[in-house]
Amino acid sequence: MDILSISGILLSVGALLVGNLLDGGDIGSLLNGPAFIIVLGGTLGATLLQYPPMTFVRSLEMSLWVFKPLKFNLEAQITQIVNWSLHARRKGLLGLENLIDREKDPFVKKGLQLLVDGNEADIIIDIMELDINIQENRDYQAARLFEAMGGYAPTVGILGAVMGLIHVMENLSDPGLLGKGIATAFVATIYGVASANLFFLPIANKLKAHIFASNQAKEMVVLGIAAIARNENPKNIELKLKSYLQKNKTK
Amino acid sequence: MDILSISGILLSVGALLVGNLLDGGDIGSLLNGPAFIIVLGGTLGATLLQYPPMTFVRSLEMSLWVFKPLKFNLEAQITQIVNWSLHARRKGLLGLENLIDREKDPFVKKGLQLLVDGNEADIIIDIMELDINIQENRDYQAARLFEAMGGYAPTVGILGAVMGLIHVMENLSDPGLLGKGIATAFVATIYGVASANLFFLPIANKLKAHIFASNQAKEMVVLGIAAIARNENPKNIELKLKSYLQKNKTK
Amino acid sequence: MDILSISGILLSVGALLVGNLLDGGDIGSLLNGPAFIIVLGGTLGATLLQYPPMTFVRSLEMSLWVFKPLKFNLEAQITQIVNWSLHARRKGLLGLENLIDREKDPFVKKGLQLLVDGNEADIIIDIMELDINIQENRDYQAARLFEAMGGYAPTVGILGAVMGLIHVMENLSDPGLLGKGIATAFVATIYGVASANLFFLPIANKLKAHIFASNQAKEMVVLGIAAIARNENPKNIELKLKSYLQKNKTK
Amino acid sequence: MDILSISGILLSVGALLVGNLLDGGDIGSLLNGPAFIIVLGGTLGATLLQYPPMTFVRSLEMSLWVFKPLKFNLEAQITQIVNWSLHARRKGLLGLENLIDREKDPFVKKGLQLLVDGNEADIIIDIMELDINIQENRDYQAARLFEAMGGYAPTVGILGAVMGLIHVMENLSDPGLLGKGIATAFVATIYGVASANLFFLPIANKLKAHIFASNQAKEMVVLGIAAIARNENPKNIELKLKSYLQKNKTK
Amino acid sequence: MDILSISGILLSVGALLVGNLLDGGDIGSLLNGPAFIIVLGGTLGATLLQYPPMTFVRSLEMSLWVFKPLKFNLEAQITQIVNWSLHARRKGLLGLENLIDREKDPFVKKGLQLLVDGNEADIIIDIMELDINIQENRDYQAARLFEAMGGYAPTVGILGAVMGLIHVMENLSDPGLLGKGIATAFVATIYGVASANLFFLPIANKLKAHIFASNQAKEMVVLGIAAIARNENPKNIELKLKSYLQKNKTK
Repeated sequence: MDILSISGILLSVGALLVGNLLDGGDIGSLLNGPAFIIVLGGTLGATLLQYPPMTFVRSLEMSLWVFKPLKFNLEAQITQIVNWSLHARRKGLLGLENLIDREKDPFVKKGLQLLVDGNEADIIIDIMELDINIQENRDYQAARLFEAMGGYAPTVGILGAVMGLIHVMENLSDPGLLGKGIATAFVATIYGVASANLFFLPIANKLKAHIFASNQAKEMVVLGIAAIARNENPKNIELKLKSYLQKNKTK
Repeated sequence: MDILSISGILLSVGALLVGNLLDGGDIGSLLNGPAFIIVLGGTLGATLLQYPPMTFVRSLEMSLWVFKPLKFNLEAQITQIVNWSLHARRKGLLGLENLIDREKDPFVKKGLQLLVDGNEADIIIDIMELDINIQENRDYQAARLFEAMGGYAPTVGILGAVMGLIHVMENLSDPGLLGKGIATAFVATIYGVASANLFFLPIANKLKAHIFASNQAKEMVVLGIAAIARNENPKNIELKLKSYLQKNKTK
Repeated sequence: MDILSISGILLSVGALLVGNLLDGGDIGSLLNGPAFIIVLGGTLGATLLQYPPMTFVRSLEMSLWVFKPLKFNLEAQITQIVNWSLHARRKGLLGLENLIDREKDPFVKKGLQLLVDGNEADIIIDIMELDINIQENRDYQAARLFEAMGGYAPTVGILGAVMGLIHVMENLSDPGLLGKGIATAFVATIYGVASANLFFLPIANKLKAHIFASNQAKEMVVLGIAAIARNENPKNIELKLKSYLQKNKTK
Repeated sequence: MDILSISGILLSVGALLVGNLLDGGDIGSLLNGPAFIIVLGGTLGATLLQYPPMTFVRSLEMSLWVFKPLKFNLEAQITQIVNWSLHARRKGLLGLENLIDREKDPFVKKGLQLLVDGNEADIIIDIMELDINIQENRDYQAARLFEAMGGYAPTVGILGAVMGLIHVMENLSDPGLLGKGIATAFVATIYGVASANLFFLPIANKLKAHIFASNQAKEMVVLGIAAIARNENPKNIELKLKSYLQKNKTK
Repeated sequence: MDILSISGILLSVGALLVGNLLDGGDIGSLLNGPAFIIVLGGTLGATLLQYPPMTFVRSLEMSLWVFKPLKFNLEAQITQIVNWSLHARRKGLLGLENLIDREKDPFVKKGLQLLVDGNEADIIIDIMELDINIQENRDYQAARLFEAMGGYAPTVGILGAVMGLIHVMENLSDPGLLGKGIATAFVATIYGVASANLFFLPIANKLKAHIFASNQAKEMVVLGIAAIARNENPKNIELKLKSYLQKNKTK
């Protein structure tokens, strides 16, 4: 469970509501059906026009990561890879064959299979990097869908506001309604700007951070398996892979 | 037929109109001939000045993709390439010669011909990548034409609004007309911002996604043909090419 | 003669004027001497401060391309290069010597000379690519001068508007002049935004498209001459170079 | 102690307050609780949603650099590396073994160990560059957290202002309160724009400059150790490393 | 003396003042102490917080280039390098030794020394490119300081304007002062936008053009010295280096 994500949403929405209340504002005046329809429908419509269906499906899948983040146990993975390299030194690459079935992660499994098949390091890297790149492209595309929504929402909000203002301006004859009309028009701006900056853009960036972390975990596996294929010194393999563990440092 | 594209347009335009109606607005006040002439003419004029004729033609051609998307049957293509590699292992590269005539796609045909002519993998890659790059550059240029329209439309809309406001300001003596004048001026802004964000920008991005998918399909062909030229193991060729098929994954 | 450039300018300016007239506006109120001086002088001043003299000269030279575009006959060039390669196969590279004098384009001439002198392909590529890169950098710099003008003009227009508004605000005592004063102030915004979006930015982008096309034509020559130096198969040379001719394709 | 950082903050905040006072403004009217809650809560909330916990911890750690900058004694480091190279020439790489324990910096220690273990230069570079890249990515991510705050603060400020304006507009019936209401609404804009431009964005950029300097110091160490591994001439090693010392030059 | 820089500043500032006068504005109303303090102090403060001291020193040094530009006599440099190559062919690299002392430019001197010491071309390129890159990074950082000022000035100007407007809004009871108050507030916007667009941004870009030209002159020296080290044909060396001289061309 990603506590920070939930706290972030509660904090930002809460701060706006509390600040508004303390300033003497009325929460009710922030609720406006037509503005909601315009901002939600306009933003969603532009996004539907922009992306192919597969990207939508992937965006929905990935949006779960915001609350239930991907976990990577890099330390365990390193131990495992170093063990494979020791194993391979003692019993040859074929000695790893019976480990393939036990492996659950399909990406790691593919790497082990390529290793046991006796492929050269460069070929293993080629095949696995291609796999990483294609998946990475799809995932970034899906993360950018939220970025696109964060781009369209404020402009659609402004459209809603301008349409509201036109409506107000045509009825200037009744000044008593002027203020209320303008207030209503402004609500569309709030919906657009708030949904973009408090939800869509931070979510897009959190997903990008998850994609980056996921790729680093995969890159580490490729590095390790390629090093075993090159019959590198297990000590050096461990040293290399431990770079991925780097704790924060003062410098 | 791209259902999402059509739904997207209907949803965004519908949401704006419905929201406006529910808010008590009059659809009629969103219709304004002079504003339409300014935004359409100004945006189109700037775009005509910016691009060479060939880009316009290509943009028109490509705009059909928004509703009738390009289809790529990657699975069938992979099966075909793996069959070629098995065929070539049994009968030599010349054994592929009679397949060339049956191939309809000119890009794949070119690749097969280069393969049968006995060129080395690097030369085949060179020639086919050059072909991909040049076509890719032209297609991205054509997609960016819509992006440019999405950039010019809102600023031309603002020009229309400011011209309208000047007109209003010069007639302040008749306050009864003030509101209506401002309302009319704002319509140009709506035309500019809405056409950019609900049509031009999403279309430009959808076209870019199609170009990307089209290139990936071509890259897969190049990868496969080059692998046959290098006499790679058909099993590895299949493994490599299947990266392009990757379904969405949890991680 | 680039019909599109001229049509673009006529269309955008015409649409603004016609739209303004239909809306009941007065063309006269869009003419304002002081606003013109501020926007033109401010934009030009900032640009003069930003660029070295040589870039100005080049920008002026290149601005002619907007109406009289560069022409490249790629098909004829390919035929010529393939003929050179056949000639070289029959009579050796020295057989090309008497063709050098007939060649008019200094870039192609330089390439032929390097070829006849018996330089290796890599050295020819090195020297000619250096030539391309340096010219390309200068030309893009000159195209970006128009982009810079398109960046400064709207902000200078806003400066003019704010100065006008200050002037108006200080004379609020006479409300009769208020509207007219504001109208005048807005004209500077129109000059800035319109000159940027209807002229400077589209021109900058059209020039960039010409630079790109010019470089592609040069790259094709380098590719061809280097292939002759490597004694490549004339059939493959033709196949490679024809990638540059690619017509628009459905996919 | 980074005098410039402190002077910068004092100068910018002081200038705003003094300028405001001289203009006859009241500092008190710049203090507004609800606006403070909205801008701080909204900005922090969006940032919490955007980043994983580890990035927050690293950002806090790194924020100290703004006032207590990282120090690098490149001259001493160069002398040390050149001494190692002389030492290695006389006594072989193993002669450096007893220096490893004396070294405090874990990065330099790792490099020395790899050198003494007799690894080839390319392997040393591979392992150490991986280490640099992974740390660099994390640090830039942490610096960009401040950049993100600098992006969200002004938009949240605008949200606060628009909510305030809605509140004002709904009470137009009492014009006496109009001005004061608008004034209060504007304070949120000031908090957002000022915190972004006077704190968050400059801090993000200062941290990036520190990361860059830190990486250059590390790159110098890698260059030096790899040169020792390649048994390069100590004179050339010194010449190379001294590039990092470059004083500002007239040209 | 860079006439264009001076003309640019005179033209832009002059156009604003003349335009303002012709429009009936009062220069006096553009002078405002508090606005000046806010914009100057705020911009400088943010910049001090953002950059390390060394960057400030370098920015000051480099700002002189705006009026007294760097001069590079590329033709003389080419002649000199070609002479060195002829000299080296006749008398060997050691024959260049007595030329080192006569050379004044420390960068060229370093290159000559590396050449006479008998280093291979790749090592010479490595060492000299490192030197170029490190200096280039510092110089671009210093040029970007002006860019940063050009980014902060307008936002600080808006801060000044909003503070002024708050002050005005709180005193709506005296409408006679309203206009004048707003006018004063707007002056801060003018200071911010004008200083950024008429000074800081053009200066940053002019400095970048100088850095680029300076690097090209250095790259030419590296190319020439490396070519001598590789014992290349003096005729080809001259041909290569002359690419840097390219006059503007029609195509």
